[in-house]
Amino acid sequence: MLYHISMTVKLPKDMDETTATGIKAREKAYSQDLQRSGVWRHLWRVTGQYENISIFDCRDNEHLHEVLTGLPLYPYMEMKITPLNRHPSSIHEGDQ
Amino acid sequence: MLYHISMTVKLPKDMDETTATGIKAREKAYSQDLQRSGVWRHLWRVTGQYENISIFDCRDNEHLHEVLTGLPLYPYMEMKITPLNRHPSSIHEGDQ
Amino acid sequence: MLYHISMTVKLPKDMDETTATGIKAREKAYSQDLQRSGVWRHLWRVTGQYENISIFDCRDNEHLHEVLTGLPLYPYMEMKITPLNRHPSSIHEGDQ
Amino acid sequence: MLYHISMTVKLPKDMDETTATGIKAREKAYSQDLQRSGVWRHLWRVTGQYENISIFDCRDNEHLHEVLTGLPLYPYMEMKITPLNRHPSSIHEGDQ
Amino acid sequence: MLYHISMTVKLPKDMDETTATGIKAREKAYSQDLQRSGVWRHLWRVTGQYENISIFDCRDNEHLHEVLTGLPLYPYMEMKITPLNRHPSSIHEGDQ
Amino acid sequence: MLYHISMTVKLPKDMDETTATGIKAREKAYSQDLQRSGVWRHLWRVTGQYENISIFDCRDNEHLHEVLTGLPLYPYMEMKITPLNRHPSSIHEGDQ
Amino acid sequence: MLYHISMTVKLPKDMDETTATGIKAREKAYSQDLQRSGVWRHLWRVTGQYENISIFDCRDNEHLHEVLTGLPLYPYMEMKITPLNRHPSSIHEGDQ
Amino acid sequence: MLYHISMTVKLPKDMDETTATGIKAREKAYSQDLQRSGVWRHLWRVTGQYENISIFDCRDNEHLHEVLTGLPLYPYMEMKITPLNRHPSSIHEGDQ
Amino acid sequence: MLYHISMTVKLPKDMDETTATGIKAREKAYSQDLQRSGVWRHLWRVTGQYENISIFDCRDNEHLHEVLTGLPLYPYMEMKITPLNRHPSSIHEGDQ
Amino acid sequence: MLYHISMTVKLPKDMDETTATGIKAREKAYSQDLQRSGVWRHLWRVTGQYENISIFDCRDNEHLHEVLTGLPLYPYMEMKITPLNRHPSSIHEGDQ
Repeated sequence: MLYHISMTVKLPKDMDETTATGIKAREKAYSQDLQRSGVWRHLWRVTGQYENISIFDCRDNEHLHEVLTGLPLYPYMEMKITPLNRHPSSIHEGDQ
Repeated sequence: MLYHISMTVKLPKDMDETTATGIKAREKAYSQDLQRSGVWRHLWRVTGQYENISIFDCRDNEHLHEVLTGLPLYPYMEMKITPLNRHPSSIHEGDQ
Repeated sequence: MLYHISMTVKLPKDMDETTATGIKAREKAYSQDLQRSGVWRHLWRVTGQYENISIFDCRDNEHLHEVLTGLPLYPYMEMKITPLNRHPSSIHEGDQ
Repeated sequence: MLYHISMTVKLPKDMDETTATGIKAREKAYSQDLQRSGVWRHLWRVTGQYENISIFDCRDNEHLHEVLTGLPLYPYMEMKITPLNRHPSSIHEGDQ
Repeated sequence: MLYHISMTVKLPKDMDETTATGIKAREKAYSQDLQRSGVWRHLWRVTGQYENISIFDCRDNEHLHEVLTGLPLYPYMEMKITPLNRHPSSIHEGDQ
Repeated sequence: MLYHISMTVKLPKDMDETTATGIKAREKAYSQDLQRSGVWRHLWRVTGQYENISIFDCRDNEHLHEVLTGLPLYPYMEMKITPLNRHPSSIHEGDQ
Repeated sequence: MLYHISMTVKLPKDMDETTATGIKAREKAYSQDLQRSGVWRHLWRVTGQYENISIFDCRDNEHLHEVLTGLPLYPYMEMKITPLNRHPSSIHEGDQ
Repeated sequence: MLYHISMTVKLPKDMDETTATGIKAREKAYSQDLQRSGVWRHLWRVTGQYENISIFDCRDNEHLHEVLTGLPLYPYMEMKITPLNRHPSSIHEGDQ
Repeated sequence: MLYHISMTVKLPKDMDETTATGIKAREKAYSQDLQRSGVWRHLWRVTGQYENISIFDCRDNEHLHEVLTGLPLYPYMEMKITPLNRHPSSIHEGDQ
Repeated sequence: MLYHISMTVKLPKDMDETTATGIKAREKAYSQDLQRSGVWRHLWRVTGQYENISIFDCRDNEHLHEVLTGLPLYPYMEMKITPLNRHPSSIHEGDQ
């Protein structure tokens, strides 16, 4: 089941460099695990912003919640979540 | 080059059934041609709304404008357009 | 799987009485069928407004979309859809 | 008498772990007491957010105010309160 | 129990004079009955606008809903409803 | 001359308890003096919020400004001010 | 007593030319009478918009309401009204 | 050439008294110089707010920018700037 | 003196084809005259929207108002006008 | 390919003078390099605000992202990015 997620990251201006680098590295590893397992289906960066747009494929709302709140950057993110359906005009097998 | 597009459709309440059916059929054919040619990369419906979320792959802004204004439903749509980049953490080959 | 839905109804001011009465009667019957089958779990009216707040229990996003777009009043409604999870502090068996 | 409440929690980023854990434990106990007594009728979590949606059953506005301002997390919450009525199409005995 | 209500009236520009005058007369009579019975506790006009601000004293949310939807101008009004409490610093006996 | 005022209070989270208690006590005394003198005509609390709704009766805009900026909590308040008129349908002598 | 008023005019697109010309002429005469009598203290046009910004000097809120609702274009205007005070740094005698 | 400016002042809560008093005194002197020279044509306070509404008469946009950014309180202000024209119905010589 | 203008065009859905074509042709001619004379310095289309972004070079606010209200499409446009200054870091001679 | 960018700068109030001066100098040098190379096509200041409006000419979205995130002031900016097209009525060779 698909969800459209936009995530905007707001790191505190006074977070020290080492802490920031560490969180970002863990975020990248976590994200790539989820991409490999098929849960994080698409991931794009919004041009010029510290924001991404993603498509998640989860079993249900509980699964999505667990995955999102596990993000190392989660405490610094604002999220907008939109449930998606297959579009009747889509011919792409993956759009579901 | 990728763009994220959300399209909300507002057909006039007094549009007659035949006209509406005709426009929607032309819209579907137009959309599927663009999907086959690789321009309309993804197409999802927003759950419970007369709205879709799409990813377009165009040569440049001119190409995108031409494609969008050619939509049979274009006069009845509100659009929000967001330029996208490949995300440095993405491992999906298609996310670019 | 639960969803929180708010529905605001805007009937055209010039809809004739008979048509309006007919749609509302079909809406009521449709709603009560869904309540009996367990899909429409809760239904409240917002005080002083032509608006309701509801909890739906659906198999997935596709199921929810099908149920909502089948509402006789759907063409005259604005909807806001929010996916829900069981809350870890809830002790009510039904809140899931 | 029913009220629809949405609560968004914003803990200060610099609140120390022990204090946060303590407040959350007291919040959970307080919430479950109110659920057992029938005042806090429903409690759901909004998927992916630090936010809940609840239905309260109170004697009147004074009762509701007293209950909400007694929440241990109250100083860190933004609330939206909506009075509810029984919906004439509802067949659920509990929706009132 | 008190509620703060703001009502903005938007009569259709093409409503004929006689109809408009009739509705307004019925609205005034209805309003003054409720004022006499103590339900409509205060009624002010917002300077320069076709809008009023009112305080209602009702038994509960059901009572308020019934009273508001009975207004002859109700189909042409936008309403904002805010539940009120006695303020601990108030010395006015009537502010409850 | 009447004005409708809504005041939302936002005390800094790090204000120490003694300072806060002192300001609130002075605010209460100041408010009750103004209520006794007839300037602060009505005072209600918004249910569940740290916000009040009030009706002031002042000689003119200068008088209102002087009274509001004298509030001990003024530096921590957001205010919305709306001039009011007697409503032609009001039968309450005090609503002017 | 001074008020700052912004007025935006929205004439219906289908109003016939003669009616529009007539209303505008009456509006101009009405406005100039009020300017001569000192009530309409200042009147400017917002560059590029069908909107004006004005300063009114009225005895009280009742007077302002009467003057504004008497505008021939009043049914086609949106208004924003802001009470003003003399500024303690002003040296202009007329700014009060 | 005229401009309508609204300025809202937000001094940091922790600015010490002496600094604040100093800035405000310099602001007042600066403002009165500009009023004497005819640049700052009108200056009013918005009732109950730490905000003013002003009319500036400048040679051009460059001149306005220079004057505004020279305000001692400029770093603590939010500004809204609206270019103005003489209104064809105005009879006041100064409204240009 | 420069101004940044965004213009969004909303033609009535029921405007007949001939009228629309005529207005658009007059708009194009008018626009190109102003471009040749140096007043309409830049003109771009917003990708995917019936909206343009322009830079105007006018003697003053009066000149700008006269030019904008003379646009054949003016009655169907929403405008946002922002005064501009030369930027101290600009090295482009034309950016003033 | 052209993009319209508005940048609003919000330096922390407690940034020390030397740091601020250093960043601004690097920003100016960086901006002028991009102007010389033809990437930063136009740069204007918004009158009275710490904000600029710019036109960028980039090969694609990736190029734009790289250029914007390289701005020394980038961490303190809010950006709004709008893709542009040549307007069919433009006669300026450079407007593409």
